[in-house]
Amino acid sequence: MRSFDTMSQAYEALVDKRQEIADLASASALLSWDQEVLMPAGASARRARQLGTLASLQHKMTVEELPRLLGAAEAEVANSEATQTQRLNVQRIREDLTKQQKLPAAFVADMAETSSRAQRVWEGARAQNDFASFQPWLEKIVALKQQEAQYYGYIDHPYDALLDSYEPGVRTAKVQQLFDAMKPRLKALLDAVMAAPQVDDSFLMQPIGQDLQMAFSASVLRQMGYSFEHGRQDLSAHPFCTSFGMEDVRITTRYRPNDIGFLLYSSIHEGGHALYEQGLKSEAYGMPEGEACSLSIHESMSRMWENNIARSEAFWNYFYPSFSAIYPDGLKGQSAERVFAAVNKVAPSLIRIEADELSYHFHIFIRFEIEQALVAGTLAVRDLPAYWNAQYKNYLGVTVPNDAHGVLQDVHWSLGAMGYFATYSLGSFYAAQFLEEARKQLPNLDEKLAVGEFHHLREWLQGQIYDRGRLHTSDELCTIITGRELDPEPFVRYISAKLAKVYGVHLVV
Amino acid sequence: MRSFDTMSQAYEALVDKRQEIADLASASALLSWDQEVLMPAGASARRARQLGTLASLQHKMTVEELPRLLGAAEAEVANSEATQTQRLNVQRIREDLTKQQKLPAAFVADMAETSSRAQRVWEGARAQNDFASFQPWLEKIVALKQQEAQYYGYIDHPYDALLDSYEPGVRTAKVQQLFDAMKPRLKALLDAVMAAPQVDDSFLMQPIGQDLQMAFSASVLRQMGYSFEHGRQDLSAHPFCTSFGMEDVRITTRYRPNDIGFLLYSSIHEGGHALYEQGLKSEAYGMPEGEACSLSIHESMSRMWENNIARSEAFWNYFYPSFSAIYPDGLKGQSAERVFAAVNKVAPSLIRIEADELSYHFHIFIRFEIEQALVAGTLAVRDLPAYWNAQYKNYLGVTVPNDAHGVLQDVHWSLGAMGYFATYSLGSFYAAQFLEEARKQLPNLDEKLAVGEFHHLREWLQGQIYDRGRLHTSDELCTIITGRELDPEPFVRYISAKLAKVYGVHLVV
Repeated sequence: MRSFDTMSQAYEALVDKRQEIADLASASALLSWDQEVLMPAGASARRARQLGTLASLQHKMTVEELPRLLGAAEAEVANSEATQTQRLNVQRIREDLTKQQKLPAAFVADMAETSSRAQRVWEGARAQNDFASFQPWLEKIVALKQQEAQYYGYIDHPYDALLDSYEPGVRTAKVQQLFDAMKPRLKALLDAVMAAPQVDDSFLMQPIGQDLQMAFSASVLRQMGYSFEHGRQDLSAHPFCTSFGMEDVRITTRYRPNDIGFLLYSSIHEGGHALYEQGLKSEAYGMPEGEACSLSIHESMSRMWENNIARSEAFWNYFYPSFSAIYPDGLKGQSAERVFAAVNKVAPSLIRIEADELSYHFHIFIRFEIEQALVAGTLAVRDLPAYWNAQYKNYLGVTVPNDAHGVLQDVHWSLGAMGYFATYSLGSFYAAQFLEEARKQLPNLDEKLAVGEFHHLREWLQGQIYDRGRLHTSDELCTIITGRELDPEPFVRYISAKLAKVYGVHLVV
Repeated sequence: MRSFDTMSQAYEALVDKRQEIADLASASALLSWDQEVLMPAGASARRARQLGTLASLQHKMTVEELPRLLGAAEAEVANSEATQTQRLNVQRIREDLTKQQKLPAAFVADMAETSSRAQRVWEGARAQNDFASFQPWLEKIVALKQQEAQYYGYIDHPYDALLDSYEPGVRTAKVQQLFDAMKPRLKALLDAVMAAPQVDDSFLMQPIGQDLQMAFSASVLRQMGYSFEHGRQDLSAHPFCTSFGMEDVRITTRYRPNDIGFLLYSSIHEGGHALYEQGLKSEAYGMPEGEACSLSIHESMSRMWENNIARSEAFWNYFYPSFSAIYPDGLKGQSAERVFAAVNKVAPSLIRIEADELSYHFHIFIRFEIEQALVAGTLAVRDLPAYWNAQYKNYLGVTVPNDAHGVLQDVHWSLGAMGYFATYSLGSFYAAQFLEEARKQLPNLDEKLAVGEFHHLREWLQGQIYDRGRLHTSDELCTIITGRELDPEPFVRYISAKLAKVYGVHLVV
């Protein structure tokens, strides 16, 4: 029970309803987490229906009960001495609702039904390397996404409407311009690196037990500031981070006996997401102020910790002794410097989620082009595999041996998620820009990082990013923090400097 | 989506709503399970609020949406060619609702609030052996339970109204008569056993690792027919069984390094509950037909497996070799017969949940008397500890050293659960009666049990009990299966015969 006064009664009623909806969303998230981590196999059909019930209830509350409460809160906020935070909270909820209300219920149901079935078809298609079986489903999904763009409305390009769902306020043309400018520069860097003597990372591929891998990753997570009092780490088929409220933010990882880098860096990546979720304002649970800003900003947090911090020389100088303690055989005759080089090895490859930090972006560039063409209708689904393979040859110089290692590799499209991929690259760029700013504002940051004192950075992120929730768009947030909108130059400087160290290539890109 | 025809449209709408409510209940159960098994400590306050939201939504659906659907289904069932099962489902739902509607919302909220706070006070009081701090809370709870009895209404004794919540259709006088008849007979047996040479069970108190204990208990569970495809076993502070639908029924246990019997028998006990839940009709999920009959019948299933089956000579003859394989040091110089004797050792003690199979019932007799007196107002809460201690001396011959090992030991009263305890003893009596009947109907049952072929018994329970859901009261079910209502003679025969073997006492009780 909260105490109501007449000045904020409607606003508090809105908060209560949003918290109720958030409780249902948290329950759904726990059911999903359990499904991936622990659930006995025989329970999957029942669990799917239970998740469906919870989703329907959330939807029903949002469309049937929220509008009246929101309208009352808007009137109150307009007429009273509401805080700027209250105003922004109300404004964000109205934007969400407006967008949601543009989609007819029948369309939402069709999309949910189609994507649920398409995902199962995709799983089979990938396992059996059979694009033909997935093709009609992808065609249906593309048609639905085209329809969705019409419902949402757009000015320039139908893809704008889809991009906006994941990255509010961002236009296709702007991202395209950014990516177009980056492509030749990153390609020049990639070519130079590939021409240089290659880095040896084979010593990281020696067997090491699950318990030791988990213990080492947990020690890194603790040092980063991840609270095991408010979360836990488990194993699942694919690493992920999920939240049931700021006090229970869990991460998962996957154990590969001969590849400690996989478990370690996926843990740090998910840990970066988790620090953000654990750091959101607990008292704003259920409101935009208590939510993460956007996918690209979320990804900037995971990539900053994974790449900028945990793939730095300073990181390995600090962690080398404890790493040696659990991995003595693998590190015989090695050094912190050689570990630093090994974890930064560049090697263009077929699978996005296993890509290195530089070639990764070409995976995104390819998907970004393809999604636009599919939505615009200039690329037919039946021509997709050939186009995909040509682009991988073109950008990354790799030959796709089959569709399972090509166009069928990612789950997103089967789920109906189009407009999502760009946020991964944007996240890397934001990460570099934020970290340059942090170095300006915290002059001795690197000294602190070099001795494993990560809390200086984390506290800065707390004040600059976590505390601001979803009261601003990504661009607005970036401008508040750094004085300008997204600028890829910090990323170019960062990646060039690092690869210059690793490969000895000194290229002004 | 189910297909509606006009003949059963209202009935199917009722089923859909009940399934929706069951989905919310299943989600709540998973949140609670997670809370006991895995949840990080810092999440407890948020989790409690999320559970509160889910409970409110279930309540709201039940009081706001169910009555109209139920009324329509009742009209339809009365006028159409409905099946007997449909009629009974509707009838049970009406009975539940009528009972629920007797309690004013303010009373329900007061009870929930009081018990939630009282439970925390009780935890502290037990930990610090401080009855005085709990006394005012228990007084409040007793007053609320007296009020509740008034709301429900009763003919003979206010305690009838409370008993009926846990064991529908059963009257206090009938249980009292049963218990009064059993007391002297079980006391005579207890005295005879205590006068006989005592059994040695110290060889079961040697250290054995958690993995081995869990593996052995899992092998027993599998043999019983517990499906790990539709459940799992984990560790928690107190063993329990919980269901999120028939396809996901989980059990927990607790590891004690020097007491394999604890983990093993708590696993089998919870496994007996779980077989029942896994065996309920999946297609009747959400309806009385898909629910367990009553607490006493549930307890009969757990106790039958724990005591009648797993504390039998046949059980240990069969399992002794595999037990020896994991516990070779402990069993050096022992035999199946001596394990059988050890797990049946009788020793009156202070704590109900650790009591042996015979003296256990005196714990229940004491609580049953006390609850009646508290509700009738003939025993004041302040006089409770002295009365408790006197009764333990009287019935069990033990001296209660402090309230933590006496009146404060059980959680039930702090939760507002009065009228519950009798079902534990009734469960033991039902178990023996059902098993006598099974032996009549399955003439070679004991030969099958002797070779570990438990599925004959389980399939019989499936047909006789699991499949019948909650369409009948305990008494009706017992009559359908055995031709008569609850009869304690099978239990007396069973326990006398077993203790005669173990202790050599041949007493006609």
